[in-house]
Amino acid sequence: MTTPGPSHDDSRFLRACRQEPTDATPVWFMRQAGRSLPEYKAVRGEGSIVDAIADPDRATEITLQPVRRYGVDAAILYSDIVTPVHAIGFGVTVEPGIGPVVATPFRSRDDLGRLRDLEPEADTPYVLETVRNLAAELEVPLIGFAGAPFTVASYLIEGGPSKNHGRTKSLMLGDPALWADLCDRLADLAITSLTSQVESGARAIQLFDSWAGSLTPAMYERHVLPASTKVLEAVASLDVPRIHFGVGTGELLTLMGAAGADVMGVDWRVPLDVARDRLGPTYAVQGNLDPAVVLAGWEAVEGEAADILTRNAGRPGHIFNLGHGVLPDSDPEVLERLVELVHAWPPGPTAS
Amino acid sequence: MTTPGPSHDDSRFLRACRQEPTDATPVWFMRQAGRSLPEYKAVRGEGSIVDAIADPDRATEITLQPVRRYGVDAAILYSDIVTPVHAIGFGVTVEPGIGPVVATPFRSRDDLGRLRDLEPEADTPYVLETVRNLAAELEVPLIGFAGAPFTVASYLIEGGPSKNHGRTKSLMLGDPALWADLCDRLADLAITSLTSQVESGARAIQLFDSWAGSLTPAMYERHVLPASTKVLEAVASLDVPRIHFGVGTGELLTLMGAAGADVMGVDWRVPLDVARDRLGPTYAVQGNLDPAVVLAGWEAVEGEAADILTRNAGRPGHIFNLGHGVLPDSDPEVLERLVELVHAWPPGPTAS
Repeated sequence: MTTPGPSHDDSRFLRACRQEPTDATPVWFMRQAGRSLPEYKAVRGEGSIVDAIADPDRATEITLQPVRRYGVDAAILYSDIVTPVHAIGFGVTVEPGIGPVVATPFRSRDDLGRLRDLEPEADTPYVLETVRNLAAELEVPLIGFAGAPFTVASYLIEGGPSKNHGRTKSLMLGDPALWADLCDRLADLAITSLTSQVESGARAIQLFDSWAGSLTPAMYERHVLPASTKVLEAVASLDVPRIHFGVGTGELLTLMGAAGADVMGVDWRVPLDVARDRLGPTYAVQGNLDPAVVLAGWEAVEGEAADILTRNAGRPGHIFNLGHGVLPDSDPEVLERLVELVHAWPPGPTAS
Repeated sequence: MTTPGPSHDDSRFLRACRQEPTDATPVWFMRQAGRSLPEYKAVRGEGSIVDAIADPDRATEITLQPVRRYGVDAAILYSDIVTPVHAIGFGVTVEPGIGPVVATPFRSRDDLGRLRDLEPEADTPYVLETVRNLAAELEVPLIGFAGAPFTVASYLIEGGPSKNHGRTKSLMLGDPALWADLCDRLADLAITSLTSQVESGARAIQLFDSWAGSLTPAMYERHVLPASTKVLEAVASLDVPRIHFGVGTGELLTLMGAAGADVMGVDWRVPLDVARDRLGPTYAVQGNLDPAVVLAGWEAVEGEAADILTRNAGRPGHIFNLGHGVLPDSDPEVLERLVELVHAWPPGPTAS
């Protein structure tokens, strides 16, 4: 089927996802839309992020803002990893400053019944309208996304953000059959959501398994990999690059790649060259500046960014990004200069 | 000088620290004293943990409780990593359910003046009395401990626990000279505190750099390693094993070892055999069961513990522990059975 808007096939971002040479290193930032931008605060309005996501005009504008301001090489849909479970009525809200909160957490097999199929046109028409708006308007590719089954499951089970994922691991290890069924349900939701985003004009997808780094490699392989593989393999036929991301996943990189990624997200704990060596030539990489460094100001950012770019040593298949989302107190001017630095890399000889 | 109590030199725990063969794998648990034990709740009393630490009778009893109940192979002093900075009047309290909280966080060079030398006999006589009590009473070695400069600095700068250590990294990268001076001060405090604990009867020490895993290896090497090396090298002459521990430090293990450890703490994210390979034969290892697995009940614990012991494959120099502290909701009976399992490993042939 044809999707709205230009293909952007020759864009820096998509070429880098395919490990093709580019005129400059592409760059975008996780959570580039949002909390750190004054223009975001101006249009965001009161109420939950869920309300802003459900308003295609606002969501479109919020997605465009960082592209305009920073000149980044990709846009990422303004949405949330819990949008599908919210839309099918599981009872999830997103509290400002906290994150997803679940009124009645997932506890037993009966709760599987609360996870019906997602019908994108009926349940999330606003997402599709936002994606179509953006596909028509953007001069860079739009990244669609979904939460990976483990990370979404952790919110549904814990009832909110968690420091140690105790309840999640208890269910995973204590009732592996129920855990597998839950993850399989969440995989189906992710597949349906990602497919609908791509069919509406997203040119790449990112699977966020943000908290997978809390697991041992053995837990990941046995209890998480199957459902994430299901998602990434199902969307392979959509013919868009698949980015797979988590925080603190140094020991999981090869497993997460094997799940079916084209691009592996790397957080700052692993030096980029070490990550590329560990992953081998199969994968492009995305990352990996510590978002906290942005708070330290331009000189610190300049040094750390140069280190990352030097470690990549001009190899094709590097998309510059932070190792996790932009922190709320980040100075947009620092990020603006960072985009300039990445695009101008390597620095030319200084006129003397 | 002579220290109180028996040397315990031939104990399982100290032999394993020195990588000597043992009749069984020694085991203890970080935070084995405290929140998860009913007998702890019975004697702990109201008020801050700081008050309980300052009462040698209570602190002695709390330290002994898990040794009695679990039959672990080492005791760890009931204290806190902020005890020295609290004792010299920096203005640190420990809030229940939160952790260390600092009324007036460290912000500038002037604040260095708030970090005077520690005089153990005058500032923390209760710690020394507790250690002497324990050295006389315990049938297993007592582990003394201190917070590593980075982790203590992060509390002083952030004012409390932090998700991303933004202010800490800002100071580290934005004013490296002040950062180095702060860490050097905190190193001196740790050295004085550890030395006084060992002279009072502690038979091993653990340096807790719990949050070092939030750093890139380059940040660790440049901004953290020097002060931690100063601590570990200064206490080398005390002739007790030095354990060095952090969470999420898979990429830092060799650096943290090189700081001067005899035993490297390993969290659950790195399989124990991978950690041993990464570290080489120089170091004993301590770990590495995910504390959240304890919440999943005995069957899960049994499987994960067997996996860890199997990965160690009988090599000397393994001290079984959790990868981080015992979680408050842990069932003491599960930990009791875990100690039995570790001591009985490898399992004999089943009678049939």
